[in-house]
Amino acid sequence: MTHQATDTKVDYTLEINRTLGSFFDGHITDAKTISPYYEALWLEMKRLIESGGKRLRPKMALLAYGAFGGKDINSILPVAAAQELLHVSMLIHDDIIDRDYIRYGVDNIAGGYDKIYEQFVSDKTDRLHYAHSAALLAGDLLISGSYELILDSGISLEKIVEVQRLFVKGLFEVAGGELLDTESSFREMGAISAETVSQYKTASYTFVAPLVIGATLAGASAESIQYLRTFAENIGIAYQLRDDIIGVFGDELLTGKSSIGDIREGKRTYMIEQFVALATEEQRVTFDHYFGDQSISSEEAEIIKNLLTTSGARQKTEAAIDGYEASAREALGSLEIPDGFSQQLEELIVVATKREK
Amino acid sequence: MTHQATDTKVDYTLEINRTLGSFFDGHITDAKTISPYYEALWLEMKRLIESGGKRLRPKMALLAYGAFGGKDINSILPVAAAQELLHVSMLIHDDIIDRDYIRYGVDNIAGGYDKIYEQFVSDKTDRLHYAHSAALLAGDLLISGSYELILDSGISLEKIVEVQRLFVKGLFEVAGGELLDTESSFREMGAISAETVSQYKTASYTFVAPLVIGATLAGASAESIQYLRTFAENIGIAYQLRDDIIGVFGDELLTGKSSIGDIREGKRTYMIEQFVALATEEQRVTFDHYFGDQSISSEEAEIIKNLLTTSGARQKTEAAIDGYEASAREALGSLEIPDGFSQQLEELIVVATKREK
Repeated sequence: MTHQATDTKVDYTLEINRTLGSFFDGHITDAKTISPYYEALWLEMKRLIESGGKRLRPKMALLAYGAFGGKDINSILPVAAAQELLHVSMLIHDDIIDRDYIRYGVDNIAGGYDKIYEQFVSDKTDRLHYAHSAALLAGDLLISGSYELILDSGISLEKIVEVQRLFVKGLFEVAGGELLDTESSFREMGAISAETVSQYKTASYTFVAPLVIGATLAGASAESIQYLRTFAENIGIAYQLRDDIIGVFGDELLTGKSSIGDIREGKRTYMIEQFVALATEEQRVTFDHYFGDQSISSEEAEIIKNLLTTSGARQKTEAAIDGYEASAREALGSLEIPDGFSQQLEELIVVATKREK
Repeated sequence: MTHQATDTKVDYTLEINRTLGSFFDGHITDAKTISPYYEALWLEMKRLIESGGKRLRPKMALLAYGAFGGKDINSILPVAAAQELLHVSMLIHDDIIDRDYIRYGVDNIAGGYDKIYEQFVSDKTDRLHYAHSAALLAGDLLISGSYELILDSGISLEKIVEVQRLFVKGLFEVAGGELLDTESSFREMGAISAETVSQYKTASYTFVAPLVIGATLAGASAESIQYLRTFAENIGIAYQLRDDIIGVFGDELLTGKSSIGDIREGKRTYMIEQFVALATEEQRVTFDHYFGDQSISSEEAEIIKNLLTTSGARQKTEAAIDGYEASAREALGSLEIPDGFSQQLEELIVVATKREK
């Protein structure tokens, strides 16, 4: 690692938001030439994306770009912002399936349209049908929009094609991860490993794609990109395992959500897989009685929590996180990047593995 | 127009299907490395796309390419096939919203998954929820896949970017057209013109984009592309107006579908707009009584049909089709392309304006 002044830590939130803002403003203008009602859909999308989101993926892309010596932040901002569009498109579509109408604490697209259509369509079922239709189109437009933003960036034609291929791969993998995550809740235990789900649903899309895209744009070597990929996969899986532990053992005051939800849902995480492998027959019988039962009480959930602890499943999951963390640190150690950037990647490890909410 | 032998009429169905087939085969292989359950989703998509579809959009792109002297069909086949992927993605997503489970006379993605999940999820509501989730992912993957196929074509980097911009524009316009089409059924009469819906929902996406993309790839001049665009917009709108007439006056034996559907649905077509403008107060009262009433009989539908005829609305719509046809022919006459191709474009006019089903 080479030494360098630590003024490398820049928060690009404003720049990312400005890029997203001008993407939406351009489309709002274009949509208006078609109809004020089409303009309204674009205004809704802009409203939603401005209401929340930590811009984690764009920031990681910019971090990796800087770490490998990239200097022309302006030219790659659209590529970074494209990752937020793709992410939001997935959230909008997820919400349709889950029939959720709130996102970032505000109306999502379907929720917004439920209100817009209220004065025209009095039947609630019909109105939600139309609102979901608008939301579906919004998600489709943002997938296409993510490819468009890459075209609008200042990078070379070769890089456009290279980055789009990484986007294609990212979407291919996250869609697989989402399908498997859904199916793992009802297919036979063991058919779909929690590690595979973590790898494709979380690691690939949230960590690998942004970091690899940033590094690629900075012209990092194939060897460096391989280390970065290993780093990203390991913290991505660790992030998911930590999420699973928090989902059951998390402090509700810190997380702001129920710690019974995952147990009631019968969510088949890595920790649950470990329990199945480690449990005595008696423990398993008790577990099967309560796990996945929508109606269990907090006291009954405590029984499950105790089983996960006494069986050693929780500890085994903590050990797995330690293992992924060690692998991530090893990969990070092999990366020849300035200290300031290295420290920021280390902070990512801490966030992924040690957080409590 | 220059003369040339008329061996220009080639049916590329096989080549288009082969391109689509190898796209799916590649992804089936890649998905299998993630999980057999992800492979299953890609197999379902391949099954659906092989079950139907006339490949109208890819064929028009290849036709325009040939008309402007394009010779390297193989290199642009993926771009042509990409238009079919985009189209099928829209159909899959439409079917989710409409809760349809059949497409091309076979199970669509949600219908296929309803059966795949049958042995695992006994509750029908839950099962359809999961099946819709798979279908949503399938549509998303095919939008992304259409951009991917363009990357995989043998065209230059400049052309890749140029064609992708046309895809972005096509999706932007068709999404607007679909939103307006949906909203026109419940917003106040006149808020959204049927011509705008036709232009964006049908003309832009089905006719303009494929023809302009083909011509662009062949290196047609900006002037030629402008004539082709005018040609495509006019036949596209004429196509939609003919569709609207067939929807009400069509011979059910020829069309294979009810001619009451559009009346019951209260579909606000160009012809209905003409009726509203032309009708006497008395005609309007009768019309409003029956139009859009889900429960009307065939006899009552006949009253509406008679009103559309006697008011002059049907005739006005026929005249509008004639006008669009004349504009399309004029634009075609300005195109300097070999006779064989010119004839095929003329056949498109006939299909658009004169068909009975």
